Formats: sequence, C-alpha cells, structure tokens
Amino acid sequence: MSDVRTKILLDESHLPTHWYNILADLPNPPKPPLNPRTGEPVSPDDLAAIFPMALIEQEVSTERWIPIPEPVRDIYRLWRPTPLYRAHRLEAALGTPARIYYKYEGVSPAGSHKPNTAVAQAFYNKQAGIRRLATETGAGQWGSALSLACNLFGLECTVYMVKVSYHQKPYRRSMMETWGATVHASPSDRTQAGRAVLKADPESPGSLGIAISEAVEDAATHDDTNYALGSVLNHVLLHQTVIGLEAKEQLASVGEKADVVIAPCGGGSNLGGIAFPFLADRFQGEEVQVLAVEPSACPTLTRGQYAYDYGDVAGLTPLLPMYTLGRSFVPPGIHAGGLRYHGDSALVSQLYHEGHIQARAYPQGPVFEAAILFARHEGIVPAPESAHAVRAAVDEALACKERGEARTLLLNLSGHGHFDMGAYDAYLAGRLEDLEYPQEAIDRALEDLPQAPAI
Amino acid sequence: MSDVRTKILLDESHLPTHWYNILADLPNPPKPPLNPRTGEPVSPDDLAAIFPMALIEQEVSTERWIPIPEPVRDIYRLWRPTPLYRAHRLEAALGTPARIYYKYEGVSPAGSHKPNTAVAQAFYNKQAGIRRLATETGAGQWGSALSLACNLFGLECTVYMVKVSYHQKPYRRSMMETWGATVHASPSDRTQAGRAVLKADPESPGSLGIAISEAVEDAATHDDTNYALGSVLNHVLLHQTVIGLEAKEQLASVGEKADVVIAPCGGGSNLGGIAFPFLADRFQGEEVQVLAVEPSACPTLTRGQYAYDYGDVAGLTPLLPMYTLGRSFVPPGIHAGGLRYHGDSALVSQLYHEGHIQARAYPQGPVFEAAILFARHEGIVPAPESAHAVRAAVDEALACKERGEARTLLLNLSGHGHFDMGAYDAYLAGRLEDLEYPQEAIDRALEDLPQAPAI
Repeated sequence: MSDVRTKILLDESHLPTHWYNILADLPNPPKPPLNPRTGEPVSPDDLAAIFPMALIEQEVSTERWIPIPEPVRDIYRLWRPTPLYRAHRLEAALGTPARIYYKYEGVSPAGSHKPNTAVAQAFYNKQAGIRRLATETGAGQWGSALSLACNLFGLECTVYMVKVSYHQKPYRRSMMETWGATVHASPSDRTQAGRAVLKADPESPGSLGIAISEAVEDAATHDDTNYALGSVLNHVLLHQTVIGLEAKEQLASVGEKADVVIAPCGGGSNLGGIAFPFLADRFQGEEVQVLAVEPSACPTLTRGQYAYDYGDVAGLTPLLPMYTLGRSFVPPGIHAGGLRYHGDSALVSQLYHEGHIQARAYPQGPVFEAAILFARHEGIVPAPESAHAVRAAVDEALACKERGEARTLLLNLSGHGHFDMGAYDAYLAGRLEDLEYPQEAIDRALEDLPQAPAI
Repeated sequence: MSDVRTKILLDESHLPTHWYNILADLPNPPKPPLNPRTGEPVSPDDLAAIFPMALIEQEVSTERWIPIPEPVRDIYRLWRPTPLYRAHRLEAALGTPARIYYKYEGVSPAGSHKPNTAVAQAFYNKQAGIRRLATETGAGQWGSALSLACNLFGLECTVYMVKVSYHQKPYRRSMMETWGATVHASPSDRTQAGRAVLKADPESPGSLGIAISEAVEDAATHDDTNYALGSVLNHVLLHQTVIGLEAKEQLASVGEKADVVIAPCGGGSNLGGIAFPFLADRFQGEEVQVLAVEPSACPTLTRGQYAYDYGDVAGLTPLLPMYTLGRSFVPPGIHAGGLRYHGDSALVSQLYHEGHIQARAYPQGPVFEAAILFARHEGIVPAPESAHAVRAAVDEALACKERGEARTLLLNLSGHGHFDMGAYDAYLAGRLEDLEYPQEAIDRALEDLPQAPAI
C-alpha cells in the first residue's frame, strides 16, 4: 500500500473562499415557505425576530457564490480543510474493485461537520449586534458546535437540551459548558412552552420538538437574542458546502472524479454539504449519483410524503415544502439521534423529488455492523449518523465487486462516535433492536398534514 | 490573523523513515536495569519470555537511527504526520509576545500519542509469531491504542482494566471491544495474581499495579502470548520520537526553532517522544530547554528519589534506575490517570538528573483552569494529561510577557479529553480538589526502596 496515499490533505491556502449556493443552479425554481396564517410566501420580516438579515438574505439568495467572511475562514482554519481519506484497508477487506474515499469532518473540535454553519451563524449574529443565541439540542452534536462558535465570537449561548439526553449524555453537556454555554434540561421553567409541558407532565422526558419551541420562544421574547438552527434551512446547507468543495478539489488532485456521493440524511445539512457541489456538475451533464441514507426508523425520503408541513411539532414555523412523515411522527429511540427528524430540507426534498438524489433506508443493526467493520479497518470509530453512509458505501462497494466495476465512491464521514460508545456497547452486547416503523403509524401521522397547497 | 498559518501540515511523503534513538547520543552511558535476584544487569534472555527479540534489541541498541518498518509506516499514515498548530488565539488572549506551537496527537483513532508505539509493538510481535498480546490499562488510553494496533495486525488483545475504571469508564471499554479486544476487569479470576487479590478482598477496586501483574503473568504463562507496555521502557520512547521529528521539520518549514519544549510526564513516553529529537540538538550546543510537567499529586521528578526501584507494585520487574516515589506509593485519584505512575523512564530520569531536562509540578485545579482557557480559544478540549503541558506553556508565555521576550514554545498536546469530560464537569462544578501529597507519605513510601547499588 505504501505507494498510494492514505490521506489527501489541503493546505490552508486551499480553504474555500466562497460557499456554493445551489439555488443559482436548480433545474426548477424552489417552492417558497408559506405563512400558515395567510397561505402566502413568508416575507423576510416574518423571520427577522429570530434571525439576522444576513442569514435571511442567504436563505433566498440566488447568487451562485457567496463569499465566506474572513473571520469565519480564520476559525475554519482551526480544523479545515479536513482530510480526505482513501479507504485502502476497507477496500482490501471487501475485495472490491471500487475506490472508496471518505471526507472526515470529525476533526473539528466539536467532532462533527456542525461547526461549519455554527461559526457562520455566530459571526452574522455578532455582526448584527446580537448578544446571545438560543438553540435546542438532542444528542448534543449541534449544541456543542454552537457553544464552540458562540464562545469564539464572544456571544452567550443558551442550549435547551432534551431532558432525557441531558441526564443520559452528561459528557456532551460538560463539553458545551467547557466552551462557556449555559445548558438547560428541556422542558424547563424558563419558557411558557416549557412550563406548559411541565404542568401537564412534571416528569416529561422532553423531545426535540419541545426544545425547539423553548429556544424559539427565548429568542422571540428577548431583543438581544436570536435563534440558530443546525440543519434543514437553505443557509445551513449553504455553509456546509465547504465539505463538498474541498472534496472535489482533493479528488481532482489525485486525478479522481466521484461516481457516487453518499451521505447520511436527517435534516439534510450533511448530505447537502458534501453533495451540492457535485450536483452542480450533474446539472451540467456529468454522471454523478447522489445517495441519501436514512434510518428505517425515520424513513422521511423513502416512505414520507412530499407536502407542505410544519418544521416543528407545535406548528410555530412557516410551512415548508418537504418530504415529511408528519410533524406528530415520533421515531423510535435509535442511536443516530441526528437522523430522527420528521421532515427534510426543502432543497434536498425537491432534488430528491426531481430524481437528482436517490435515497435508501437501513435498520440500525446493519448500520452498526458496517461501523464496526469500518473501525476495525480504518481505525476511526464513526458517529452513528455517519455510519449510515458507511453502510451504504460498503453495499455499493460490494455491488461493484459483483459487477466487476471500479467505481469511485465518496462518503461523508461527518463525525466520530466518541460520545456514542453506549450505542456500540449495546450493539456488541446484542442489545440493539432493528427498529422499523409500521406503515400504519406513518399513515396516521401523515393524516395531520396542515391545510396547504399541494406541491 | 489571516496572513499567518494556523496549522502546519506535512504530507505523507514527510512521514519519518526512522525513529531517533537517544541512546546513541547520551552524554553519559545509561545505567543498566538489574536482575533483582543477582544484582547483575539483566540479560536479553531475562526478557524473552514476554517481549519479542526485536524489541529487546531496540531496548539496548545504540544505533542513532532505527528504520521504521513499512507496515508500521503504512498504519501511521492513518493519522500521521499529525498537525502542528500555532496557538494564535491563545497567544492573543494572553497578550504574550511568545509564539506558542502545539503538536496535536489527538488525531489518532485512539485519541492520543499511544498508538505510535502500540502499532510498532504489535508489528514486531506479529513478526515473531506471537498470536496474542496482554496488557493492562487504567483510564483506558493505552488499552485503546493496543486494541487498535493488534486489530490492524490480526493479533488478539487481552486487556486487564483496573476494575474501578472498568465500571466508571464503560465507553473506553466499548472502544477497545469495538476494535475487537477482550477486556477483563482486574483483579480477575484468570490469573493467580488476580485470584490472590480477590481472595483477600472480593470487593477490591483494583489498581494499575495489580493489572500489570495479571497481564505479565498471562504473557509469561502462555507461549503464544507476549506483554506490551505503553511507557517507561527505552523502546517505547524510541517509537514516540516520530512526534518530535515531525515537529522539528514543521517548525523549520516556517523558519522557527523551539526555545522551550514542554510535555506532560508520567512514565515519560509523551515527553521523550517530543523532546528527544530536540535534546539531540542540545547535546550539539543548541540552546533548547526541555520542561517535564507532572501532577503535584504524583511528583516523581520534583520530589522523588533517584534510585533503583521496581517498575511494578509486586516487585516482579527488573530494578530500574529512575526517579521514584517508591513502588508502594499510591497517588490520590486525580483525573490525569496517565500521570499516576510511581516511577519514570530511566532515560528521562538520567537526563533530568544530569540537568538536560527541567521539571515542574502543578495541582489539578490550575491544570484544568488552563485546559478550559485553551479549549475556549483553540477549540480542542485537551486530555487532563496534556493539560499539564498547557498549564506550563501558559505560565511560560506569561513569563515571556513579563520579560518582553518573544520565545518559541512547543508543547505536546498528546490527546483529546473526549473520554474525560467527567473531570471537566467536576472542575466546572467546583468539585475538583487540589490533591497535594504530604511529604511524610512520600518519605514513608521511599523507605520501601529495594536493596540495590546507589546511582
């Protein structure tokens, strides 16, 4: 193996100067988010209570290239450009003619790709004179990323952490506090939303939906405070495109082109981040396939409906055009907490609907089987979310072996599993269930879809 | 900041081809380890029951450069060369004219510098026809590293993990199992040593000393099994010199020379790894200062005695010429588990004794204060062991500010703290004690020194 490189590194001088905005190149215009009261497209003013204008502008901009502010690039330098790895050992173990590359985002201080947008969001909020950001977190990846970013820009950070995770994952909480954030178990008594839940059920374990409501209320009721979201929205996916831009340059530097780009898909920022720059080529006629991988326990793209739905459980957000399982859908407690969202990014949904993205769902058993195979050959222990992409890449590589095809696979290894070892423990001890969701439950949740125009 | 690089990367083509052996350049010949029964220097045969001959030869070799086998370099490529960072943000926060660089070893899959030697040891054992390695681990850093290395070379790995850690740090255990190792809580019923302890105290929480005895006995009583040690021995420090060799090249590439090299010091592999290549220059007349940082709770260099002592608690090892607190010394339960060893590497001890290395001890409060300062400015959350070096670097930088001196500081950030967040939690909650060790307890432990020639 010594004649072929394992890691393809880029010097800081190759750090992208712009984010790639896929809105400029969409084959069809995007459907707008709708104000649920009026049924009309939301206006920038509707969002100004909780987002700074720079991000609202990015949400709708059709400029192809959006400059990355220098203070954001300075912080990116702490871990970017991230390495692109050739999975020599995994390939050999599979006996595949496929070439497997993985872009490793786990080198960020928070351990995932999430800081790519957290840093940008903290910057624009700071610039707008905001003093504090409020957000929610489930397993803690996003809360950690925003805590890090706020700290680096001198913003306060308030994180509403789902109560059951707050108690089960104290180390994620300690990490956020190490970066200076204040973390509250949600439901808390700090918001009307939280108090209402606690009144009905003082023992409520909380949910991401409740935590979102608390964070949004906190931001909406304090002039100096905004809200930050870690996925789904256009500007979030925009900031993540540094992943794909770097990966393209890294592949090109060794004379490679991706045939298949593979990423886990929850809200869509992981997938959009690596895949959008490759879809730009696809729109130009290049043959590149994009594969979104989701858990069978929350099969938004593969079994959901393409419709207008609320982004949150309480129905406070605009109506978003997306694949959804219905906002009342509560997925089983799989370990890939980042993939338990009932909906999906509007951009990813549209591109999937129009056939530019394919999707596949896996139960968590085969996902962890692939994660362990990966760890034993490549060393890195993947986050459960990232392991979904590993599973699909392994299956694609085995299909290449079957067909004798030497395709080039690129996967987004979006984070490490250092805070998820309990999931590995459960898998190794045979305590991990393959949680599938029954169709009738999905159908029932989909009956809740709001009144809105068909897509 | 945008005009100055944050990370200095090296391409894989710059991966060192040789380890640096400081035995070739020592100003004075090293004292030999002694057979405690005969009082004579140990012979290679004394060690052959538990180590392969290639490592025994490296233990005593005086060749300056020892080639790194290609299969070892191939695995190093999974994370090496590691990045060298310039701590721009920390420098700005301190307002120091000093330039602070840190070599970050936490990018290895196991999260510390330990795999540098684990991979080499697994390779030589595999080559010698060994089927299985046995070792001990306390907090889990070394056990993780050896599990990873054995797995990559197709060796079985048996880890005796101190029982209290086995239960308190289940995630480190899961990580070892993810890499295919078998982990036993020590004392176990698998060895005479373990059974003896359990008979006397069925509830024994275990200790590193007991776990070492179990692992050595396991190796000595099975023909196909050897023992592996993660620090202290010459060959271990030899393998770690890739750290310092890379750092020197990285500094040179930006026109820098280190004035002070700073590392935590437990058994000595962290310090030896980064500092020995710089000491080679010192022996040639360069002015470079080397600073070993230890916890005041286990102040081996700063308050121990330079004498022949056993490396383990039970007195099974050869007598080693080293700074020691006495083998019966039981340090308080500080969070830097890797720095709780009663002795120190013979090489580090000799160089300290001869004035080539300086040493400083800190209580854990100031260490965690510096770790949090570091995390808030540089992002990375340091391992508690590495945080000792951070504390010393911060103090050196502040001294430079006081004196208006622009010195170049290099510190070994040997690992991340992702599995140590409980310690951060304790610090942030004000539950961390500054555990100092009373002099009379050290004096008492030193009364146990074995009969041996004075040094």
